[in-house]
Amino acid sequence: MKNILIATTALVATAGIAHAEVAVSGSAKAGLIYNSEGSTTVKLLSKANVAFDASGESDGGLQFGFNTNHIVTNNGSVDNDDTTVFMSGAFGKLSFGAVAEADEVAGLSDIGFDGLDVDDVAEALVGDELGDLVGTSLGHNVNYTYATGPISASISGRLNTDHADAGKSSYAAGVKYSFGQGYVGLGYGDHEVDTLGTAKVVSLFGGVNVDNIKVSAMYSDANLKSVGGAKFGAKAYGINAAYTMDALTLSMGASKANFDAGLGLVDQSAFGIGAAYNMGGGATVSAGIARVKSVGDENLSGTAAKAGASATETRADVGVSFSF
Amino acid sequence: MKNILIATTALVATAGIAHAEVAVSGSAKAGLIYNSEGSTTVKLLSKANVAFDASGESDGGLQFGFNTNHIVTNNGSVDNDDTTVFMSGAFGKLSFGAVAEADEVAGLSDIGFDGLDVDDVAEALVGDELGDLVGTSLGHNVNYTYATGPISASISGRLNTDHADAGKSSYAAGVKYSFGQGYVGLGYGDHEVDTLGTAKVVSLFGGVNVDNIKVSAMYSDANLKSVGGAKFGAKAYGINAAYTMDALTLSMGASKANFDAGLGLVDQSAFGIGAAYNMGGGATVSAGIARVKSVGDENLSGTAAKAGASATETRADVGVSFSF
Amino acid sequence: MKNILIATTALVATAGIAHAEVAVSGSAKAGLIYNSEGSTTVKLLSKANVAFDASGESDGGLQFGFNTNHIVTNNGSVDNDDTTVFMSGAFGKLSFGAVAEADEVAGLSDIGFDGLDVDDVAEALVGDELGDLVGTSLGHNVNYTYATGPISASISGRLNTDHADAGKSSYAAGVKYSFGQGYVGLGYGDHEVDTLGTAKVVSLFGGVNVDNIKVSAMYSDANLKSVGGAKFGAKAYGINAAYTMDALTLSMGASKANFDAGLGLVDQSAFGIGAAYNMGGGATVSAGIARVKSVGDENLSGTAAKAGASATETRADVGVSFSF
Repeated sequence: MKNILIATTALVATAGIAHAEVAVSGSAKAGLIYNSEGSTTVKLLSKANVAFDASGESDGGLQFGFNTNHIVTNNGSVDNDDTTVFMSGAFGKLSFGAVAEADEVAGLSDIGFDGLDVDDVAEALVGDELGDLVGTSLGHNVNYTYATGPISASISGRLNTDHADAGKSSYAAGVKYSFGQGYVGLGYGDHEVDTLGTAKVVSLFGGVNVDNIKVSAMYSDANLKSVGGAKFGAKAYGINAAYTMDALTLSMGASKANFDAGLGLVDQSAFGIGAAYNMGGGATVSAGIARVKSVGDENLSGTAAKAGASATETRADVGVSFSF
Repeated sequence: MKNILIATTALVATAGIAHAEVAVSGSAKAGLIYNSEGSTTVKLLSKANVAFDASGESDGGLQFGFNTNHIVTNNGSVDNDDTTVFMSGAFGKLSFGAVAEADEVAGLSDIGFDGLDVDDVAEALVGDELGDLVGTSLGHNVNYTYATGPISASISGRLNTDHADAGKSSYAAGVKYSFGQGYVGLGYGDHEVDTLGTAKVVSLFGGVNVDNIKVSAMYSDANLKSVGGAKFGAKAYGINAAYTMDALTLSMGASKANFDAGLGLVDQSAFGIGAAYNMGGGATVSAGIARVKSVGDENLSGTAAKAGASATETRADVGVSFSF
Repeated sequence: MKNILIATTALVATAGIAHAEVAVSGSAKAGLIYNSEGSTTVKLLSKANVAFDASGESDGGLQFGFNTNHIVTNNGSVDNDDTTVFMSGAFGKLSFGAVAEADEVAGLSDIGFDGLDVDDVAEALVGDELGDLVGTSLGHNVNYTYATGPISASISGRLNTDHADAGKSSYAAGVKYSFGQGYVGLGYGDHEVDTLGTAKVVSLFGGVNVDNIKVSAMYSDANLKSVGGAKFGAKAYGINAAYTMDALTLSMGASKANFDAGLGLVDQSAFGIGAAYNMGGGATVSAGIARVKSVGDENLSGTAAKAGASATETRADVGVSFSF
């Protein structure tokens, strides 16, 4: 839920007057995270996020704004959790900062309370997740999206900034067609990656949302070329299904990622199931459990335990999530 | 003073509708800090804190929210100054993050404008202050409190997180009985501490608030056991008294902490007096002066001057505090 | 544009009631930065800033508050971008934190979208910019300003804090006389600087704002003395002119800084032109281009490219700026 700050002038008369404003909202969560391969198997997690959403409109009808999240995790430091500056109009929408990569047309939902990264295996080759795989940041910082009727098309790229590595290029494009109760999508990413040379990735997306059942699937195929010219292939795919009965939602996810032997990457797989109960008023209690085999364990941060994370591990979490 | 953001829907009709919201308030202070043993004896201090307090309620009556403080000290970085996520209902209140340690049933007020840490000597063995003494973080991150009539009982502990050290345990319990114009309390803490082995601490609290006089006192007794099995005792106790005449409040505090010789810790003592004048509208001017002998000087941050801090030092401060 | 949070009580009756409040507003920008000498010549820049302005008033009429900016640049960390705590009344205004240095009576406006630092050359000897030149932080943290009629006088200094270097002193004073459509000003700064010994700087300021033309100029003369007693002189001066036609503003800036040979500093110069178009509603599109020769290139952060920055370089930028 968003709480809108009211401009002082708005107290006198708001009707028909476009004015700039900053809305303050928030979210929080608290729960437990389990990882069978962690140096510590059970950890407490608490987060409190304050979201600021600014919006305005120029005399000529250009809409503009920013979204920024100032989050505190486990009573740690005040961190930025995705900040975007944007402008939009008849020409489409142009965004800067923590933008979506255009080839990640429709990612899969994750399983669990804070997310067990079941979807990450299926998404291993698209968007900035390919960067996680090869140890290079590939996050894009500019995105242009144009939508007309059922079609939405995007291109995105990584430009140099004072905060982004120089000397690499990463671009992506994507198109999504939505119909009745579903969608199909096609994405393409083209990257320079330090350790692999180059990567060109084609991805396909589809989903349906009928009655209380929602199913999403994706498939991606990467052609990687080393600096020396050797070629390798990789594939990643996955599915997420959710069934909602009143306040209860049950979900399952399954993902695989296969790499040509020469790449030196261990094949990945993930399967998980989860449940979420909407308590109303912005409160949800949720839980999940999954078996995951992946290179690099995102549930462990910066610990030696990561080294053993290519073994299959059991992950689970349970907790409450609040929105304000 | 808290400023409540108004949800957009609330403009239409607020009566009887429970809704989630994020309240923004603030506080600030500016003044001078004196320490006779500091490498710099007088320092300027300015702080500006923005507090975000979120609250909501589920359909079933579960109340939930978070409190977070984003503070800037001396025009430095944006820091987190205590963040807590909580939920409460008929079952009591469950909090996560920067929670109170349950054995610190009723800490003493400090003396002075920004605080001369006169109370810290009396509190040296309870809550996370024991961690300051032994150089280990013992801050708890989960607290459960149940209150009924005049009685409030709490348990708290330190669970592993991505931000908290693994491999140590620290738990505490406390109970407080409030009557007419006073209270008594009992606390118990049980800790694993790196350098000392284990520590078990019993603490007693009492206070009265009659007419314009408010007196609080506490006593704590610790049984410490080294990794090798050697046993040591420690005691800490103190008192704080305040007398309010209209807008003026005069206060004094006295504290002692005694350690068995084998612990290698210097006995601590502190005595201070202070005055605060409430200017109305959220503004207060206050000052204090104290003689303090403690291991580690919390008024000096990360400087070599800390080494000499076990000598008795004179501390004083004066400044203005604002709340918004 | 400032959005004022409304205190809950204010909904019932605001007339005549002074109350403390925290106002939330914001600003953002997105654009491209060009530097001919950069290791990367073109960089993307995006910023999202949330500003909190607190204000209150004591029963006796003392006004107080704080201003703090929590900014995210290029989707990086949440940073403080100037925080000040202040109080004011009939005695004048006393500020702490990110205060103005009193000798920088009236700085020049910069050229361009995010600023090409054309003004920095003219301002090289005044305020904390002298610190940039000699590699020492000279930012002041306390300022007292008294204004009566057309005259405003200020003194400022750098006091020790936990965040400011100890052992150096830096003070400044300034006076400004405003008349009809212009102003004149005089500043004086007295600094201890590590590498140079001491610096005493006199600065003169003047400006006119007639019809649609605004011209500002400044001149400063520094007497520097090394630790060994050797004396050196330095001069810096510059001008900024802007012409506004309806929504369009054209501007130009020119600056020079000359140093005695013994100082080992390369003479600086800068010339630039810019344009800004006010789109209404808080949106502005602006651009600038400049030729700059300066020691240290502020458009490059922490890169080896800085070493070559004493060569004359071409800087340009273009982008949009939003205020909320």
